[in-house]
Amino acid sequence: MHIGFLGLGNMGGPMALNLLKAGHRLTVFDLSPEAMTRAVEAGATAADSPIAVARAPVELIITMLPAAIHVRQVYLGSQGLLNHVRPDVMLIDSSTIDPMSAREVARAAQERGNPMLDAPVSGGTGGAAAGTLTFMVGGSAADFDRAQPILAAMGKNIVHCGDSGNGQVAKVANNMLLGISMIGVAEAMSLGVSLGMDPAVLAGVINTSSGRCWSSDTYNPYPGVLENAPASRGYSGGFGTDLMLKDLGLATEAAKQIRQPVILGALAQQLYQRFSADGNGGLDFSAIIQTYLRQQP
Amino acid sequence: MHIGFLGLGNMGGPMALNLLKAGHRLTVFDLSPEAMTRAVEAGATAADSPIAVARAPVELIITMLPAAIHVRQVYLGSQGLLNHVRPDVMLIDSSTIDPMSAREVARAAQERGNPMLDAPVSGGTGGAAAGTLTFMVGGSAADFDRAQPILAAMGKNIVHCGDSGNGQVAKVANNMLLGISMIGVAEAMSLGVSLGMDPAVLAGVINTSSGRCWSSDTYNPYPGVLENAPASRGYSGGFGTDLMLKDLGLATEAAKQIRQPVILGALAQQLYQRFSADGNGGLDFSAIIQTYLRQQP
Amino acid sequence: MHIGFLGLGNMGGPMALNLLKAGHRLTVFDLSPEAMTRAVEAGATAADSPIAVARAPVELIITMLPAAIHVRQVYLGSQGLLNHVRPDVMLIDSSTIDPMSAREVARAAQERGNPMLDAPVSGGTGGAAAGTLTFMVGGSAADFDRAQPILAAMGKNIVHCGDSGNGQVAKVANNMLLGISMIGVAEAMSLGVSLGMDPAVLAGVINTSSGRCWSSDTYNPYPGVLENAPASRGYSGGFGTDLMLKDLGLATEAAKQIRQPVILGALAQQLYQRFSADGNGGLDFSAIIQTYLRQQP
Amino acid sequence: MHIGFLGLGNMGGPMALNLLKAGHRLTVFDLSPEAMTRAVEAGATAADSPIAVARAPVELIITMLPAAIHVRQVYLGSQGLLNHVRPDVMLIDSSTIDPMSAREVARAAQERGNPMLDAPVSGGTGGAAAGTLTFMVGGSAADFDRAQPILAAMGKNIVHCGDSGNGQVAKVANNMLLGISMIGVAEAMSLGVSLGMDPAVLAGVINTSSGRCWSSDTYNPYPGVLENAPASRGYSGGFGTDLMLKDLGLATEAAKQIRQPVILGALAQQLYQRFSADGNGGLDFSAIIQTYLRQQP
Repeated sequence: MHIGFLGLGNMGGPMALNLLKAGHRLTVFDLSPEAMTRAVEAGATAADSPIAVARAPVELIITMLPAAIHVRQVYLGSQGLLNHVRPDVMLIDSSTIDPMSAREVARAAQERGNPMLDAPVSGGTGGAAAGTLTFMVGGSAADFDRAQPILAAMGKNIVHCGDSGNGQVAKVANNMLLGISMIGVAEAMSLGVSLGMDPAVLAGVINTSSGRCWSSDTYNPYPGVLENAPASRGYSGGFGTDLMLKDLGLATEAAKQIRQPVILGALAQQLYQRFSADGNGGLDFSAIIQTYLRQQP
Repeated sequence: MHIGFLGLGNMGGPMALNLLKAGHRLTVFDLSPEAMTRAVEAGATAADSPIAVARAPVELIITMLPAAIHVRQVYLGSQGLLNHVRPDVMLIDSSTIDPMSAREVARAAQERGNPMLDAPVSGGTGGAAAGTLTFMVGGSAADFDRAQPILAAMGKNIVHCGDSGNGQVAKVANNMLLGISMIGVAEAMSLGVSLGMDPAVLAGVINTSSGRCWSSDTYNPYPGVLENAPASRGYSGGFGTDLMLKDLGLATEAAKQIRQPVILGALAQQLYQRFSADGNGGLDFSAIIQTYLRQQP
Repeated sequence: MHIGFLGLGNMGGPMALNLLKAGHRLTVFDLSPEAMTRAVEAGATAADSPIAVARAPVELIITMLPAAIHVRQVYLGSQGLLNHVRPDVMLIDSSTIDPMSAREVARAAQERGNPMLDAPVSGGTGGAAAGTLTFMVGGSAADFDRAQPILAAMGKNIVHCGDSGNGQVAKVANNMLLGISMIGVAEAMSLGVSLGMDPAVLAGVINTSSGRCWSSDTYNPYPGVLENAPASRGYSGGFGTDLMLKDLGLATEAAKQIRQPVILGALAQQLYQRFSADGNGGLDFSAIIQTYLRQQP
Repeated sequence: MHIGFLGLGNMGGPMALNLLKAGHRLTVFDLSPEAMTRAVEAGATAADSPIAVARAPVELIITMLPAAIHVRQVYLGSQGLLNHVRPDVMLIDSSTIDPMSAREVARAAQERGNPMLDAPVSGGTGGAAAGTLTFMVGGSAADFDRAQPILAAMGKNIVHCGDSGNGQVAKVANNMLLGISMIGVAEAMSLGVSLGMDPAVLAGVINTSSGRCWSSDTYNPYPGVLENAPASRGYSGGFGTDLMLKDLGLATEAAKQIRQPVILGALAQQLYQRFSADGNGGLDFSAIIQTYLRQQP
């Protein structure tokens, strides 16, 4: 299939490569010349603007952009996709943005005759490279079925979450819970160890009890408990604190718009903000446990 | 084995019955005549005081009491066990109390020549009746090995958590995390549903993603998501809000004594307290989601 | 002076009347015909659009609008003031909006040669009617001096807070603190009364001690402590919970943009949100004490 | 009057000196020889135990002890005051302890025929030396009237708060509010300054607006705003973070016992705990603003 792809950053770049590997033809655009060069060297055709992508004979366009402001510009702006794309070309936005913006863009697309899906991902840059991302997809069942094989070239878990915007809803809800759970594990591990327990023994108890969660059994923040977790390599790699902050910001902002209280979610946001303000925004988010561990002399 | 058993309440009663079923001989005491009658009808011998249990030719005494104040009284009081029990009789306290008190009592016991374990349980009254409790055990490895077969008559998961008090540490750490996670799931589910998602679809996404936890995949607080969870039967049965409050109180109190911050733990305690103050202390703790669900008109 | 006035709602309406009473000539616009009629009956001249106000021979234009989106539209939109107002006409925005938007609009105005001030108010509809508002003003000292006599016709406390946007900064910082203090007083009063103290005696102690604050000595949330506080008339009138929510939303959003943690501020926002979600958004914000008072049987 | 005085520490020492200066005769006891020497050099008579004080021909005994455990021991222990003091000798405990313990000790005293008051103080070591403490007094009106002139030798503000224990209630409620307000001011000042305001101008606005409070207008935590506040001398002197932590611990513990939620109070306790765990327990509690200020490079 001939696919347009806009946004070749840390996530979009490797995603585009996986589409090429799967045999698709790609026409791509990014503001960064380096990102463009990498994609072209891998076999993509360069376009010099979003409009050029829209005017290429693509059957599908995928976008992977930093924030809602860019998504609005790329889709709704006067130089944007919707003003220039042929009807029936399917649009898939894999950016992580607020559900309201996702729904607004999807509605505008559908009014012009373009089916659209929101399909944010989880799995990080590692998952993007390995083609093992999870896609949380919002849109009609028919559109989901059409897109599924394409998304499967970039991810291994493609989940239909319901109508437009629900992919974003699923992502912000899950990641807000993740942000809370990680701090919960950080507090439980710190408390237990301060009270005299061995961290690995405590994690073992929790992981077979009612405190069991992904943040404890797969991504434990206490150094040394899990060999492959960021906690055991100085909190490098993984999912950065500032990315968690972005997702918690989306969650509390969406909650504010619909007047839904999210008490622990808002507190978790502030605690990561506090941690980031100390210069730790680039560390994996599980480093939040440093808020609780005793200072070494 | 001839075992003494003090405290035949909602938990201790069925635990004692399982020991009898396993063929042990029991000498029991409880302040409630009804509780005593039930145990005696099942084959236990009645004692009329803790001292009488201590003076019976038991090899082991198990206690299951409401709070640290009772544990101190029963073990350390002038009419208590330690003043009257023969040396070498093993003592196992399955009450849930703070780790400091557990360590103080264990030290006193050991000074008199009685090996002692703290062995709080999880699994609720259902687990007590079915003999499927989890025992979190603190004490020496040798004492743990001696006690293991006895505890196995009452539970299916017997975990050695380290030295004296660590059974209590493991329990308060795990349950604090549980109390936090449950509110996290309540917020994530409420937010997602308010934003337009189907609760079962959202739970499905979370349960296969990084938000996965026991509170979501085994005990989801949203009505109708899990057929067998308390949420699907009006929050009856299960683990009461006031019991969660007790455990969070132990966690924050232990944290205070060692000057360890537990920020989400303390906030969770206050939110359950708020919910209990409205008359909901007897509902399963997952009913905390009612703090977040929209009021029906 | 001939003054343009846009936005004749609950606040803007009485403010305009006070300008008329002070002898100024007014050309006004509002989308509501009723609001226009009231102003015209009091002596104002009606304009049929913001452009018409901009084209009238006014020396100064004051705006009082609900939110940043309206301020942007009225100033920056293609049909907005900046495209049509004569240079040198001073612009004063008394809306409560985020500091970043205020600065952006002021910069655009100044680039076109129009001096601009942000001048949000406190004092509520009562203060607007009585002409006793506090104006927190951001902009140059020279512009402040020019505007001061005009603002003095509508308020009694006109404070220069520094450069553009600082009026908004002062307001969101003050109101965030107010929102926190009110909950603090609610908790302290509820705790003291539950522990057996008379509420008036407790308020008396606090008001002469280090807990002293406006929320306690001028606006105490406990019913009956202050005869003239909303708490003593069923929490009617005063400063509505949903208005406090709006201001806390501005505070946490501004904090997010500059990556500044505001931990109690964010929690306070969620507690008012929780209270509003129960249908209490129209009650005075001091009614938040109902979150803490024991339920009557 | 001949007065017994137990507890000659940082607070009790200067209080005793003020009684001597006022012409009273003192019989004193403290475990510290240095503290005893200072009092004796100032004119007090040394006793070698609490019992010796109780047996001296005193008309009144004042105690100033670190915590409830010491108060219980000194009053209720077998070597304690109540077992040896003559009936009718008035007892005044100026320690800061939980209200329940205060009531229990007062009840025991009254059963033996000794009138008793709880009379915790605020004002710090400076107020103790200067004789300007505030006494918050619980007990009968008649007993309060008898004690008032004695207390007036040590303080300038003697407040009757109601029945036994209410002095403690007033103190924990006030200080919990103080702990919350200080963090509120810290957040508001940090936010405003980060958004571009001058700290002194912002404090000026707040101090004449609805955010006004003792923590802002008398004890502002931002360095340089108030010349005489601890913030302007490196947070030395003043009311230490660990003392605030003690009072917040009493407040949340008392709240737990009566099942009263104190949401911001509990969160404030954790934030001071977090700050203390970093080694700042000895700094004035207003140094909590360091949690919010941007790190200097």
